Amino acid sequence: MRMYDIIEKKRDGGTLSDEEIRFFIHGYTGGEIPDYQASALAMAIFFRGMTDEEMASLTMAMAHSGDTVDLSSLGNRTVDKHSTGGVGDKTTLIVAPTVAALGGVVAKMSGRGLGHTGGTVDKLESFPGFRTELSKEDFLRIANDVGLCVAGQSGDLAPADKKLYALRDVTATVNSVPLIASSIMSKKLAAGSSAIVLDVKAGSGAFMKTVADARVLAEKMVAIGKSAGRRVCAVLTDMDVPLGHAIGNSLEVEEAIEVLNGGGPEDLQAVCEELASRMVSLVTGKSVDGCRSDVRRVWQNGEALDKLALLIRTQGGDDSYVRHPEKFPQACYHREIRSKQDGFITHMESASIGTVAAMLGAGREKKEDRIDLSAGIYLRKKTGDFVHTGDVIADFYTASAEKADAAEDLFFRALAFSDTAPEPVRVIYDVIE
Amino acid sequence: MRMYDIIEKKRDGGTLSDEEIRFFIHGYTGGEIPDYQASALAMAIFFRGMTDEEMASLTMAMAHSGDTVDLSSLGNRTVDKHSTGGVGDKTTLIVAPTVAALGGVVAKMSGRGLGHTGGTVDKLESFPGFRTELSKEDFLRIANDVGLCVAGQSGDLAPADKKLYALRDVTATVNSVPLIASSIMSKKLAAGSSAIVLDVKAGSGAFMKTVADARVLAEKMVAIGKSAGRRVCAVLTDMDVPLGHAIGNSLEVEEAIEVLNGGGPEDLQAVCEELASRMVSLVTGKSVDGCRSDVRRVWQNGEALDKLALLIRTQGGDDSYVRHPEKFPQACYHREIRSKQDGFITHMESASIGTVAAMLGAGREKKEDRIDLSAGIYLRKKTGDFVHTGDVIADFYTASAEKADAAEDLFFRALAFSDTAPEPVRVIYDVIE
Repeated sequence: MRMYDIIEKKRDGGTLSDEEIRFFIHGYTGGEIPDYQASALAMAIFFRGMTDEEMASLTMAMAHSGDTVDLSSLGNRTVDKHSTGGVGDKTTLIVAPTVAALGGVVAKMSGRGLGHTGGTVDKLESFPGFRTELSKEDFLRIANDVGLCVAGQSGDLAPADKKLYALRDVTATVNSVPLIASSIMSKKLAAGSSAIVLDVKAGSGAFMKTVADARVLAEKMVAIGKSAGRRVCAVLTDMDVPLGHAIGNSLEVEEAIEVLNGGGPEDLQAVCEELASRMVSLVTGKSVDGCRSDVRRVWQNGEALDKLALLIRTQGGDDSYVRHPEKFPQACYHREIRSKQDGFITHMESASIGTVAAMLGAGREKKEDRIDLSAGIYLRKKTGDFVHTGDVIADFYTASAEKADAAEDLFFRALAFSDTAPEPVRVIYDVIE
Repeated sequence: MRMYDIIEKKRDGGTLSDEEIRFFIHGYTGGEIPDYQASALAMAIFFRGMTDEEMASLTMAMAHSGDTVDLSSLGNRTVDKHSTGGVGDKTTLIVAPTVAALGGVVAKMSGRGLGHTGGTVDKLESFPGFRTELSKEDFLRIANDVGLCVAGQSGDLAPADKKLYALRDVTATVNSVPLIASSIMSKKLAAGSSAIVLDVKAGSGAFMKTVADARVLAEKMVAIGKSAGRRVCAVLTDMDVPLGHAIGNSLEVEEAIEVLNGGGPEDLQAVCEELASRMVSLVTGKSVDGCRSDVRRVWQNGEALDKLALLIRTQGGDDSYVRHPEKFPQACYHREIRSKQDGFITHMESASIGTVAAMLGAGREKKEDRIDLSAGIYLRKKTGDFVHTGDVIADFYTASAEKADAAEDLFFRALAFSDTAPEPVRVIYDVIE
């Protein structure tokens, strides 16, 4: 078998066999197949697509290219959640303890994020003392005892995906549904949970700009997950507007605590209720509507927040912050950003809002960069709100006036105003089962 | 400017600017742009194509990526010929002295061939003593005095093309008309002649399998040449059947001498007459029909053969072989290949016939390989001929019986027979001006 023939076959619209795909992934991971052949194949896939069978083969080959997490000792209630990424997305912080409070087991290995804010691991490190470097034994023990564990990624999960994604990132071949779907699903399969709920976002702050594109991606991922024998569904949610009000690490933890206390922004509540209900339903077999009531109950009665506190405590963190979020360190510099005009906010370019948060210090560009956990934006107004000149639209939290100055212009350019109110934003578009 | 954006633009069907193409070629030649980005771009070009302007930019950028040959001191009668390659193609050996005998100046730098047989330089080295390593001064002086000079390639002509072609060769991106056209034309432009005649071949022994595909390629190359200010035309010729009878280095030289003596196979005569007439017409302005008579005349009266002899002598070779081709060393082993059936030969898979010649020792796979100048095939029968069982179809010339054994099976597999005669083969399909 020769890589040349595989490229040529796909280039000419052929269907690659499972054996051919495994030959590619094995050779590429091992370094025998060079980058320049892999990028040519990726571009051919961009143009020619893949069948569901090819996608399943690619996903399985990548999922098995390195270590896999064995969660079998935790029984069949293990459930994972994956979001395709957005601005202000703190749903894991909310749904993971919620699901654990309702009998699911969320044993999550999470990476540190590159982007607007850190990843879940970074956010949880807002709690002083919280440790995410756990041995395999501790990871499984905590997940079993608490129903919930969040560890930094140890081991080498889906290294083929890591290598291929890095290559796609510099060869304009990221934007291909079969490659995105198999990339995401290979990591989820390697992570070992028996059930998976996918939060596929659509809009200006998401990778998929339209609901139609997001739906296609969701359908492909659900099909891959099922063909691998997992219970899986996908929720199509809005990311045209940032989710909730807070964008930043500690700021998002505080907002997550609000929801776990039965409060918080409505859009964030709605998305988390849907995701958590679907997760619980998948592993308990209960009706989704029944699970919705359960979710609301554990938010009202504090059981979900208790789970978060237990998680923090068990992983070495100071859980007093859960009850007293005012203890989180405050940013050195705070600025109220005021409207320069009257009108309805008709659009927030969410990707730009994310960039503003990163400029304020909430994100990292390179793995080595340090995150400013207290930095970020708090949106007091969002799409659909009416503002008068001088009204505070947002709070900037950052290290210095200079950083706020640098970010302010981009923030205003991300906004559009009008005299007439825009259509109300839908928060959840659909569920793919 | 970023290579990523250039790939993305082409991927999405955009038109690259001259500046973007020059950025790519300059960066790729210089090593700042890695192979994996270049192969992704090549694959995107495979799918999206290029406008005539993009092709012209790419060609010029590659033509100027290294040394260029300055033939301006030879006046405006310099004329080059390029063939897209085929089996038994010894046209350069015939048309170059013919054109020189009629007032054109053929100053040719020729590479050593990889493939079925050697290149023109290898073939000319059949004449003992013939030197192709010439100083620039000698090259220009001989071309001026004789009207003809053939040197091995010195200097680094179109290194961008060399590098890009090697990459395309292993990433299934060779087969793209804009990339083929700009590759060929970049070398021709760098080689400095003011006029260029392209011999674009179609059929089983050619890169372009159909006349329609060959026509598209020819039209693109002519357009590129004109946009670069050269006089240029293309002749579409058949390569479904090997050209002439001889395939091999000395064997082809002998057949070329036959044509220069007013004899030789008709198909070979026809192609050479067309190519030489077009070349002479381009640099003298005479009518093509007039040039045809001139070509026939210098073949009849020996002036073309005199030119070949003068070239051989001037470049240090023994020109007595021109009058006494029987002096060429004979292969150690000769075998007559006889038909195993009665019938018309309806097809010769020319690419396979070429491979047979290479197996007999006529070609090289790697630059370092030695060629057996006496090895090859002499086809006594070709497509359209009727043979009886036991008739000699071909002579194999090689170093040993083992080599002949190894090649014989493939030779027979390349032939198809029938009771009814096939359509006569056209030799010249069209001329693109």
